[in-house]
Amino acid sequence: MKVNLLLTGNELMAGDTIDSNSVMMAEQLAPLGWRIHKKVTVGDDRALLRAEIDQLCDDADVLIINGGLGPTVDDLTAQVLAECSGQPLQEHPAAIAHLEDWCQRRGFAMNASNRKQAMLPAHCDIIANARGSAVGIMLQHRSCLVLATPGVPSELRQMLTDEILPLLRQRFDSDHIRTLRLGVFGLGESGIQEQFNRELADWPADIELGFRASMPVLEVKLTARGQDACKQIATWRQPVEALLGDHLLGELPLNLPALLVKELQRAKRRLCTAESCTGGLIAAQITSVAGASAVFPGGVVSYSNAMKQSLLGVDQGILERCGAVSEEVAVAMARGALRISGADMALAVTGIAGPDGGSDDKPVGTVWLAWGDAEQLRSLCLHLPFDRQGFQQWVAALGIDLLRRQLLGVDTLPGVVQRYRRS
Amino acid sequence: MKVNLLLTGNELMAGDTIDSNSVMMAEQLAPLGWRIHKKVTVGDDRALLRAEIDQLCDDADVLIINGGLGPTVDDLTAQVLAECSGQPLQEHPAAIAHLEDWCQRRGFAMNASNRKQAMLPAHCDIIANARGSAVGIMLQHRSCLVLATPGVPSELRQMLTDEILPLLRQRFDSDHIRTLRLGVFGLGESGIQEQFNRELADWPADIELGFRASMPVLEVKLTARGQDACKQIATWRQPVEALLGDHLLGELPLNLPALLVKELQRAKRRLCTAESCTGGLIAAQITSVAGASAVFPGGVVSYSNAMKQSLLGVDQGILERCGAVSEEVAVAMARGALRISGADMALAVTGIAGPDGGSDDKPVGTVWLAWGDAEQLRSLCLHLPFDRQGFQQWVAALGIDLLRRQLLGVDTLPGVVQRYRRS
Repeated sequence: MKVNLLLTGNELMAGDTIDSNSVMMAEQLAPLGWRIHKKVTVGDDRALLRAEIDQLCDDADVLIINGGLGPTVDDLTAQVLAECSGQPLQEHPAAIAHLEDWCQRRGFAMNASNRKQAMLPAHCDIIANARGSAVGIMLQHRSCLVLATPGVPSELRQMLTDEILPLLRQRFDSDHIRTLRLGVFGLGESGIQEQFNRELADWPADIELGFRASMPVLEVKLTARGQDACKQIATWRQPVEALLGDHLLGELPLNLPALLVKELQRAKRRLCTAESCTGGLIAAQITSVAGASAVFPGGVVSYSNAMKQSLLGVDQGILERCGAVSEEVAVAMARGALRISGADMALAVTGIAGPDGGSDDKPVGTVWLAWGDAEQLRSLCLHLPFDRQGFQQWVAALGIDLLRRQLLGVDTLPGVVQRYRRS
Repeated sequence: MKVNLLLTGNELMAGDTIDSNSVMMAEQLAPLGWRIHKKVTVGDDRALLRAEIDQLCDDADVLIINGGLGPTVDDLTAQVLAECSGQPLQEHPAAIAHLEDWCQRRGFAMNASNRKQAMLPAHCDIIANARGSAVGIMLQHRSCLVLATPGVPSELRQMLTDEILPLLRQRFDSDHIRTLRLGVFGLGESGIQEQFNRELADWPADIELGFRASMPVLEVKLTARGQDACKQIATWRQPVEALLGDHLLGELPLNLPALLVKELQRAKRRLCTAESCTGGLIAAQITSVAGASAVFPGGVVSYSNAMKQSLLGVDQGILERCGAVSEEVAVAMARGALRISGADMALAVTGIAGPDGGSDDKPVGTVWLAWGDAEQLRSLCLHLPFDRQGFQQWVAALGIDLLRRQLLGVDTLPGVVQRYRRS
C-alpha cells in the first residue's frame, strides 16, 4: 500500500511550528509495513491545495491530509475536497450531531464558526474525533482513499489509533517489512560502511543498510523488504553485531547515560564525577536518568584550580608543575572523587574547551580523562577538533562510554579514539 | 522571490526524525520577507528525487534541497542533480581541497567514502561548509537556482548564515517586511496576549503579534508587513518593552545562561552552584558559555545527603529534622557554596525531580531554591507539575533568572512564579 501525506497550514511554512504530526503518522504506520512515500507541505492556499490533492491521489492508494479542518476562514480542507471531487458542500447530519454533542458537553451554544465545521462534501463519510470539534473526512477520489485529519496532535493521535488504523487494516494488507535499529558509539559512519563492504560482501540486496548520526549515538538501521528478506534479517543480525563488536550499545531507542546507570545498578557500584572542562555536563546527563540517585552520590565541578585543590585535594605542586590539563591532575581528581564521595568508581576530565586558553603544547581541544576504581585508574589524552559545545558533548559521551566498557569488563578503547589520541 | 524546499532522507519518512531544518530555513528567510511556498519530503529514492527536482524548479525562483550529501550509498543528492542537469559527476577540485583540509585538520587520511563527497555535477559551484565534510552544491536548473545543503543542523545553520543568505540577498530583492523577536522569561503566552488586548488596544492591524514557546525562553514576535508598518514598528517597540517589563531578556537570538555570564562579568562577581535535583545541569549550562571560567570557579553536585554534609558542610541535624528538601538545607547549601569556593554569589537547589521519592507533604515536583550573597540569601519554594526532564530544565532556568534579576538590582520575582509558588 502506498501512502502520501499532505500537510497544510501557514504556521508550517513560516517557521513557527515544527511538524511532529507526520512523525506520529509514520510511527503508527511503520509496524504494519506501510511507509509514507511522499510528503508535501503547503500553506492555506486553495489553488495549491487543489493541485496537490489531485497529484498526490494519482500516485498513491491512500492520501492522508492533515490540518485545515478548523472553524476559521483559513481552514480550507473540506471546501477543496468538495471542489476536487465535484461534490457540493453541505451540512453533514453526522457532523452536526457530533458538534451539538461537543458543544453541549462543554456547556455552550453552537455558533456559526462551529457550524462551518459540519459543512462537508456531500457524499463523504466522517471519521469520529473523540477529542475535538472537527470530525475527519473520508472519501474516494479517483482510485485513492482520502482521509482528512485534524492538525491538533492529541486529536490526531486518538483518531489514528481508534479509527484510521483499524480502517486501513481492514482495507489493505500489511506489507512485509522488518527493521532493526542498532545504537553504536565510537565508530564513524564511513568506517562502518567500509567494514561492511569488506567483511560482508555477500550482503543481500533486499536488506537495506542505513545510518543516522545523532550525537553521540550513531544509528545503524537494517530494513528488510519482502517475505524472504524479513525471514533473513534475523540471520544477518549476528554478523552485523559481530562487526560492530563492543561498540554496539544495543537496540534503539536507547540512551547512553541510562545504559551506564543500568550497568552501575547491575554491578552494585557507585560513581562520583570530577569535571573541569565539561562543567557538570556528565553529572547532568547521569542525573537526567530516573533512579540515578542509587548509583550517583554526586560530583564536583572544579572549574578553577583553587577548587581542584580545596574540594578534590589536588596537590598545588602538581598543578604548578604539570598544569591543570595533565595526566597527573586528571588522576589526582579521580582519586579525590573516590575519597570524598565514598563511591567505588570515579571519572575525572580536565581539558581546554576553547575558544581561548590553548597553547602550542596544549591546543584548544586537548583533554585528559581518568577513570576506574581504587585498584586501577586508567587515563587517556585526546585532541578533539570541535567547537566548545561539540567538545563538551563528545568528552561527556566518551567518559560515559569508558565507564560502561569498564563495567562490562571490556578492556579495549572505542575505535574512534585512535583518530584523536595524543597519548 | 518564490522558494521551494525539498527535504530528503529515509529517516524523515520512517518516523525516526522530526524535521527541524525546514523551520530553521523558514526563520532565516522570514526577516527578508521570503516565505517557503511549498515543501516536499521524500526518502532516499533516485527516481522520486529526480521527478521532484524537475517539478519544484518549474515552480520557483530558488529550490533549496536539504540532505543527501553524506558519504554513504544512500546519499543521492549530487548524483540526482547531475542527472537532472545533464552534467556528468566528476571530482570537483574545490570540494577535494575542502575534504583534504577537513581530514588533515582532524589528523586522518581521506578514504573512499570521504572522496565520494567530492563527486559533484561538472559545472556546479560549491557552497563552503565551515563545520562538516560535505560541501553544498549550487547550480542553475532551467530558470531556478538550486542550492543543495547538508542535513546536519549545525552545519546547515552556519551555511545559511555565512553563505546562502548573503548570496540570496545579492541576487534577489527582499520584500517589505520587518520582524522584531524578543526573548521573555517568566510570563505565559495567554497572559501576555491578555495584557496586549487590555493595554495596547490601538495596536495596528498590519503589525502581527505572535508567540513561540521554546523552553525556557518565550519568543514574542512582531511582524510588520508593508512599507508603512515597517516604518511604524520602531515606535511600537517601546510600549511592548514596557509591557514585558523585567521579564524581557532582550532581542533574540539570546541564551539565558550567556546573559547571566555577561552580568556576572559586568558586576565583577563570581558564582558557585550547589545542586541536588538538577544534578549539574545549572553548572553545565553556565560552562557551555565561552568565558565562563572568569566568573564561575565551580560547583558541587551533592545528590546524596552524605555529600551535602561532607562537601558543603550542611548540618546532619538539619537534614534529619527538616529533610533534604527544605528551606534550611537550601540555605545551608548556598552558604556552603560561598564558603568553599571563595565566590561572592551562590545558587542552591534541592528538590524532588521524580518519578519516585515524593510524599504527601513534599510531592514530586517540589523544589527549594536559595540564592544571593553573603549579606543576603533569599529562598523560594515551588511545586512544578512537570516530568523529570521538564522539572530539571525549569528549575535550572528559574535559578539562572533569579541570579540575573539580583545582578540587575530587580527585587521582584518573575510573574509565573505566582502560579507554582508554595512558600
